[in-house]
Amino acid sequence: MKSAYSEASPGERDDEKARARARHGELVDLGLALDMTRGKPCRAQLDLGNEILTCVGPTEVAAATLDPRNYGVIDGLPEAKALFGQYMGVGIGEVIVGGNSSLALMHDAIVRALLFGVPGGERPWSQAKPARFLCPSPGYDRHFTVCEHLGIEMIAVPMTEDGPDMDEVEHLVASDDSVVGMWCVPRYSNPTGITYSDETTRRLAAMPARARDFRIFWDNAYAVHHLTDSPRPLLNILDAAKESGHPNRPLLFGSTSKVSFAGAGVAAMAASEENIADQKRHISAQSIGPDKVNQLRHVKFFGDMAGIEAHMKRHATIIRPKFEAVVAAFDTQLAKTGVAALSRPRGGYFFSLDALAGTARRIVDLAAEAGVKLTPAGATYPYGKDPNDRNIRLAPTFPEPEEIDQAMDVICNSVKLASLEKLG
Amino acid sequence: MKSAYSEASPGERDDEKARARARHGELVDLGLALDMTRGKPCRAQLDLGNEILTCVGPTEVAAATLDPRNYGVIDGLPEAKALFGQYMGVGIGEVIVGGNSSLALMHDAIVRALLFGVPGGERPWSQAKPARFLCPSPGYDRHFTVCEHLGIEMIAVPMTEDGPDMDEVEHLVASDDSVVGMWCVPRYSNPTGITYSDETTRRLAAMPARARDFRIFWDNAYAVHHLTDSPRPLLNILDAAKESGHPNRPLLFGSTSKVSFAGAGVAAMAASEENIADQKRHISAQSIGPDKVNQLRHVKFFGDMAGIEAHMKRHATIIRPKFEAVVAAFDTQLAKTGVAALSRPRGGYFFSLDALAGTARRIVDLAAEAGVKLTPAGATYPYGKDPNDRNIRLAPTFPEPEEIDQAMDVICNSVKLASLEKLG
Repeated sequence: MKSAYSEASPGERDDEKARARARHGELVDLGLALDMTRGKPCRAQLDLGNEILTCVGPTEVAAATLDPRNYGVIDGLPEAKALFGQYMGVGIGEVIVGGNSSLALMHDAIVRALLFGVPGGERPWSQAKPARFLCPSPGYDRHFTVCEHLGIEMIAVPMTEDGPDMDEVEHLVASDDSVVGMWCVPRYSNPTGITYSDETTRRLAAMPARARDFRIFWDNAYAVHHLTDSPRPLLNILDAAKESGHPNRPLLFGSTSKVSFAGAGVAAMAASEENIADQKRHISAQSIGPDKVNQLRHVKFFGDMAGIEAHMKRHATIIRPKFEAVVAAFDTQLAKTGVAALSRPRGGYFFSLDALAGTARRIVDLAAEAGVKLTPAGATYPYGKDPNDRNIRLAPTFPEPEEIDQAMDVICNSVKLASLEKLG
Repeated sequence: MKSAYSEASPGERDDEKARARARHGELVDLGLALDMTRGKPCRAQLDLGNEILTCVGPTEVAAATLDPRNYGVIDGLPEAKALFGQYMGVGIGEVIVGGNSSLALMHDAIVRALLFGVPGGERPWSQAKPARFLCPSPGYDRHFTVCEHLGIEMIAVPMTEDGPDMDEVEHLVASDDSVVGMWCVPRYSNPTGITYSDETTRRLAAMPARARDFRIFWDNAYAVHHLTDSPRPLLNILDAAKESGHPNRPLLFGSTSKVSFAGAGVAAMAASEENIADQKRHISAQSIGPDKVNQLRHVKFFGDMAGIEAHMKRHATIIRPKFEAVVAAFDTQLAKTGVAALSRPRGGYFFSLDALAGTARRIVDLAAEAGVKLTPAGATYPYGKDPNDRNIRLAPTFPEPEEIDQAMDVICNSVKLASLEKLG
């Protein structure tokens, strides 16, 4: 069919549906087993960092500022604090370098706020009854899982091309004392791929908050994960918050999970010195310190920010063709149908596919029948409930390029079939 | 003086005090700077494990059951679960292998119990108002810090040569619904060095508990840390608890902090499958998984339990002379005074020195004047308060042997002077 489905006649749509159904049967018969669910680096990406495995031996240990093998220092090896201070764009007293998981840093920061409150607050968050978080959606399912698990009520806020809908954010934050937090993935947002505009960041930093203990969880997971040479700039929210007189508002997070190794990288947290001192006080009761040997491995391998940036270009070389394959398949097979829109990310790990309202679950089910596993429909919304049942996240980095082509054939045909079923 | 201070005449004691005071002045003039505060492995011990740093390269990664560099598995690399299941003496479904800190596993397990409760319980611990922990004392200061930080009330229970005073433990646990937990360091107890008798372990496993959500935190930190070839056997409390019909009672913890690297080892938790499932459910919201590359390093380096045991013999060869130096100095300089008793540990990391009641703080202060840093008096009791002001923990592993001799000269003279001041 050459025209959009909405402009086609009922007969044309019936013919197209029959073709899509027949094609679905053929695809099912292929017996594929492909997985587009999670933002996992592929083997070739992980291989880029293989020197990390062995770059710290006894010589490097002996040359470190302190013995990284032994106990000590709650906030990280000094040379790691220097590197990750740069990575996070903050001063040396504004960063904590931790273990392998930035999600754990975020989860634990929320747990501490629930139990003890935060600097400037007058209550543990658990007394907000219920504590509420703003959740720009579509968003990152694991953020939402943390909130749901910890009993924090989630309020979905729409996403735009410039970040969350700031009029709505400002209204909610200014009016509701129980809104204590907000999730943000400011660069190459998971899954929509957009980067917050300077105006969005400035408004987030400056907006009045009813709750004195309001915090922004700024998960800059894709800080250096560019697919182009001309990334949209991102303002440093800690700088903006200081300028606006709210230095304690943002908690910044990052990691090398998608720079070095997804399971064996280094995570970091950055914030005002007052927030950092508060976190360190709590962490001191939890642990004697992070794995400093792995921190040293990262310092030795990357050296400095230029080393990280050069490394990320090698990642981009591997994954760019995969992103291009997704776009090419969509443009060839789906664009003209007019029933779906695909994001055009310039970095990060995801595509966001918006289908006809009421078809996302069906699309995911159809793809599963044909052996292509997708993130469950709804996962990009709080409580796993997409009110319009239309958003699907695609993760193209882990499969091989030829697998992407196969998977996209399945996905595009599933979108066609589900849409035509819906349109009747 | 040849006799015990208590049997000496006032004149003899005055002479001895003058000698001790003069000696103190000489020691102060030496300008020493020694540290006997923390149970830290020394450099030579850490060097024993240097192959761990580089024993996993791309070849070992490729041969693993799954790619340890990538995301995945919340409870540890399968081969690490096999090794640490053996280490903890439990089945493969009863162990979680984590990051570098067993303290974090304990802290986080308590936080989860406070927020959510535990299997078989009907309330979050935070509703016990206040939740109480039994704390065999002298005990491990960081256990007490976790409780104090999290608002858990601590009840000190006396230690005997066979473990905590079980009559008192049984009474408290049977009668008080708010007693939800208990700390135990069952082998080479920190700091007294004793190992729990089989009867103690059986009574802990079998005793009736008023609180249905009562848990024993079994921190077997020194499971394989023997200084002799004939360690006192320790019963497996999970087996004993199953036999007594309380399979969910114990949570077992261990780590390689004092086997491989203090700051870059591997920690593990063991418990009934029901407890493990509960922990995994919570951990799944906190993290995408532990550092599996470091787990693989440990598997490759140690191989099996025999490998760990052989390695611990090399540790013992390094630290045994340090323990002997402490004993020799005590026996030569202090034993005959009758004013102090020293533990005779057959493993672990500490000595426990019991001085005259009311002198421990003074001893620590005098030693500090002479440049020897000791763990603060009282640290081995809940809230840092030794009711008798008599217990001091000595940690001999980190200093060099000649430093131990110097430090013990200072400590012994400080005990003499403080005791004679007290005796008048």
